[in-house]
Amino acid sequence: MTRLGPNRYGKAEVRVVSIARGTAPDGGDVIRDRCVSTSLSGDLAAAHRDGDNANVLATDTQKNVVNVLAKRLGDVEPEAFALALARHFVAGPITRARVAVDEYGWTRIGTHDHSFHRSGDLTRTTVVVLDADAGPSVVSGVEDLVVLNTTDSEFHGFPRDEYTTLAETHDRILATRVSARWRYRSAEVDWSGAFGLARRALLDAFAGTYSYSLQQTLYAMGAAIIEAVPDICEVRLALPNKHHFLVDLAPFGETNDNEVYYAADRPYGLIEGTVLADDASDPGLAWS
Amino acid sequence: MTRLGPNRYGKAEVRVVSIARGTAPDGGDVIRDRCVSTSLSGDLAAAHRDGDNANVLATDTQKNVVNVLAKRLGDVEPEAFALALARHFVAGPITRARVAVDEYGWTRIGTHDHSFHRSGDLTRTTVVVLDADAGPSVVSGVEDLVVLNTTDSEFHGFPRDEYTTLAETHDRILATRVSARWRYRSAEVDWSGAFGLARRALLDAFAGTYSYSLQQTLYAMGAAIIEAVPDICEVRLALPNKHHFLVDLAPFGETNDNEVYYAADRPYGLIEGTVLADDASDPGLAWS
Amino acid sequence: MTRLGPNRYGKAEVRVVSIARGTAPDGGDVIRDRCVSTSLSGDLAAAHRDGDNANVLATDTQKNVVNVLAKRLGDVEPEAFALALARHFVAGPITRARVAVDEYGWTRIGTHDHSFHRSGDLTRTTVVVLDADAGPSVVSGVEDLVVLNTTDSEFHGFPRDEYTTLAETHDRILATRVSARWRYRSAEVDWSGAFGLARRALLDAFAGTYSYSLQQTLYAMGAAIIEAVPDICEVRLALPNKHHFLVDLAPFGETNDNEVYYAADRPYGLIEGTVLADDASDPGLAWS
Amino acid sequence: MTRLGPNRYGKAEVRVVSIARGTAPDGGDVIRDRCVSTSLSGDLAAAHRDGDNANVLATDTQKNVVNVLAKRLGDVEPEAFALALARHFVAGPITRARVAVDEYGWTRIGTHDHSFHRSGDLTRTTVVVLDADAGPSVVSGVEDLVVLNTTDSEFHGFPRDEYTTLAETHDRILATRVSARWRYRSAEVDWSGAFGLARRALLDAFAGTYSYSLQQTLYAMGAAIIEAVPDICEVRLALPNKHHFLVDLAPFGETNDNEVYYAADRPYGLIEGTVLADDASDPGLAWS
Repeated sequence: MTRLGPNRYGKAEVRVVSIARGTAPDGGDVIRDRCVSTSLSGDLAAAHRDGDNANVLATDTQKNVVNVLAKRLGDVEPEAFALALARHFVAGPITRARVAVDEYGWTRIGTHDHSFHRSGDLTRTTVVVLDADAGPSVVSGVEDLVVLNTTDSEFHGFPRDEYTTLAETHDRILATRVSARWRYRSAEVDWSGAFGLARRALLDAFAGTYSYSLQQTLYAMGAAIIEAVPDICEVRLALPNKHHFLVDLAPFGETNDNEVYYAADRPYGLIEGTVLADDASDPGLAWS
Repeated sequence: MTRLGPNRYGKAEVRVVSIARGTAPDGGDVIRDRCVSTSLSGDLAAAHRDGDNANVLATDTQKNVVNVLAKRLGDVEPEAFALALARHFVAGPITRARVAVDEYGWTRIGTHDHSFHRSGDLTRTTVVVLDADAGPSVVSGVEDLVVLNTTDSEFHGFPRDEYTTLAETHDRILATRVSARWRYRSAEVDWSGAFGLARRALLDAFAGTYSYSLQQTLYAMGAAIIEAVPDICEVRLALPNKHHFLVDLAPFGETNDNEVYYAADRPYGLIEGTVLADDASDPGLAWS
Repeated sequence: MTRLGPNRYGKAEVRVVSIARGTAPDGGDVIRDRCVSTSLSGDLAAAHRDGDNANVLATDTQKNVVNVLAKRLGDVEPEAFALALARHFVAGPITRARVAVDEYGWTRIGTHDHSFHRSGDLTRTTVVVLDADAGPSVVSGVEDLVVLNTTDSEFHGFPRDEYTTLAETHDRILATRVSARWRYRSAEVDWSGAFGLARRALLDAFAGTYSYSLQQTLYAMGAAIIEAVPDICEVRLALPNKHHFLVDLAPFGETNDNEVYYAADRPYGLIEGTVLADDASDPGLAWS
Repeated sequence: MTRLGPNRYGKAEVRVVSIARGTAPDGGDVIRDRCVSTSLSGDLAAAHRDGDNANVLATDTQKNVVNVLAKRLGDVEPEAFALALARHFVAGPITRARVAVDEYGWTRIGTHDHSFHRSGDLTRTTVVVLDADAGPSVVSGVEDLVVLNTTDSEFHGFPRDEYTTLAETHDRILATRVSARWRYRSAEVDWSGAFGLARRALLDAFAGTYSYSLQQTLYAMGAAIIEAVPDICEVRLALPNKHHFLVDLAPFGETNDNEVYYAADRPYGLIEGTVLADDASDPGLAWS
């Protein structure tokens, strides 16, 4: 009467911190601060149906593998780390692995070799899906990158019906917390270089686009990444519109010439969209 | 060189609270406390490409509609509310709407007609997707429902390789924070009755399943919902394994006969799976 | 040129879960789910000045003691648990201990002896301070208790100056997340009975007070606890005013007769106050 | 039978963002992004006892004042902003004001005049208490500043009793999320300069102290701030010990020469302490 559909299981949020001592160009230490989540799929019907764990590689074992590969691989890019993990796991009854890595940045304190403060400006992400048949896919991106333009943003020309009360605006703050993910064409990429270019393109497109809607800015950001990084063929963005409402100071005898804003929490606009290279490859399982 | 892929936009987390005064069976008030998120799709290429907002029903307008329908509909089930909103939005260039409603429960304080405390035991959820061509789909569920069995859970028989250190266990605590979503066969259902049955089936299956793995419990919970509610044909569950590790008290001269546990935060196992009725319909856009 | 002032150190947020098997009146299990934080003070100048740890009982050791006493004490009230911990720690160079316990409630699932769901309606708290000279103090309370009156709340008569825009209201929703702490007169109390009476008095006072301000409701809640529980001589409350603003539906041709509200997040009013029994004892270190 | 004790009320978390256009040294914009909380005390017994609001300056009015002064003051340091607000509020029946300001940093994107990303490395804080009789006090600080030393930290020589299992260590990671507050000797200070010096002293002390305990590092950080900024006479620090535990890789045939760590969430050590200048003034109400 019932049957098992798609499923996966794994260890989520393994917080593994690797120190590479003295390997920075100036002799300082390098920190790789990661949060790793693994998910495996395969021949797991008996586990669900009968409690037969013969094919269930324990999530505790998955965590151990994360730690061991952190040791063996050391100071590598998150994409390389995730690919190595996925390749380890796909074997025997496990036919697919999804490995997600969040990486937190650290900044050296002054000239101290061993001392850091957390950067806090963004989280770097990657998700690798490796399927025994379909091969690997790599999607990387950023989270928690909050950006703001103080001007050069308008919003008008939208339809007005009996439920519309919003005034048109020809000068507003545009702010968002960027959640961006970009899909690579292959698993053989200069990950560090590509990340740097994509991050730079994204920021420049946000700053440089005179915006008539957050949709337009979204498209500009996605297109800029694709144009800057030939290895990337698809970008997905989720941009909450962090509304900054002009405070009405007229009751107090003050003007407000775009000076004082109320930063609202909820509700917020949420703009989600995809930008593709014209010759983008089939995504396969990349977004699963 | 680039093109627009799938996209949607809307207003997220509209916190609307409706009071129906004196309509409870005993004459007390009824609270509908909701967090509503709307997302629209359609002919929006010009908005992304050219900043042309002619088809962009403003997210502020979407918020207004949520409030107006809260007034007009009053004390209805979240599924009915979401369906009405979706039907409102799909028109002209907007060809698809996704409406998500989270509903928070309140409990009357003693015999007071007007006084409540928040229940806090779970969040009730629903997501309606209405497509101009494909019609409606309804997925409901629960979030934040934390459950625990103090015994009747084992975990052994899993493969042991060179990365395995976990001991087998024949008596452990099993605890999880249930995230469950169930898909209805149609948009014509006794929503309140179905929710009550599904919730009860889920809890009873968790409590009543002697478990050899969280996968097995997941399957039992999904199957129980499908068996209890003929209107439901698919259940998706995400179950974090909230590990409770037995504390080693031997160094202190104490036994620990399954009495004292450390409730770990991270990492955690994460078990995700789908259970389908044998005759489940095609999901279409339901999970998008 | 500098000197050490007040200081303390300890282990925060030890998540210890105790199971008492079969000890409920009906033969079911009992869960004590606690988050324990310990803080010690004493002769610690050398630790701060010279890195001399001879008097620094390691925070890891403090955690071990929490676990061992959880085993030895079993199913006791949080106040008894905190007092026992504090008494353990105050010895030799450690002259003061502060022990805070948060306890989370669980509800049995149906008639299952071993199965529970987390209640979620409030967190029970206690803080014991034991000083070698001053003796013990006990402060207990609740957190995360969200309450709401749908009516019987007004707010008017407040001063109007050139910065005042708020309209007077004669019927509003009053909602708050109660943070309450009550100080006991001694460390010899029927903790479970007192907690039950205090919680009930607090809820009844919230529900039963026709309110002209949240300050008035605060005072009523504090006084009700003191009147209900002779062992309590002081209550401190922090009540965020969870504003529910009536949505203006006039632009849409709808009335809003106190039916549809927007539940705001920020900013919020915050009302903090103390209610004392006329013969309240000196608090000493109770609130430190 | 009951009486009113200490109390205060106000508007919490007013999120006000000010833009000063073109005033940066290079002609770019300046953002002041603030979260402001006000609390007033005074002759409020009638409000609590009788619901008489004649002296209750509405929290909504307080919010309006925050916005108006944000306009009038523009690009000023948070201490100056908080002092001006407090001075506004203390009048008539309101005899004391506490104003807390959290300020979030923004970094310009490249050479764009109007574009920013949120810095994310710390939150700058200030609390002003102004009492009609006692005058003003100013306490400033930082929150959310996460720092880490990869080495030069030991922990040993602590007492061992029957509850001690922790091994001594001669090389560990030391990491903490700094919560620091420093008290100024007066309300006439170069706030920006003092903040810069204090932040720098704090970071340098963390990085430059060979540590035998987090207590020792705490003292060094507090003393460094006092020595660097003559206007500061007291520092209070709360330092969670963000434990990084060396992962045992021996079961997998790997060494772990301080390379791979598990970053634990809970429990954590929590070290709190005060460092005072020898000639520190009386704090009065500064910490209330």
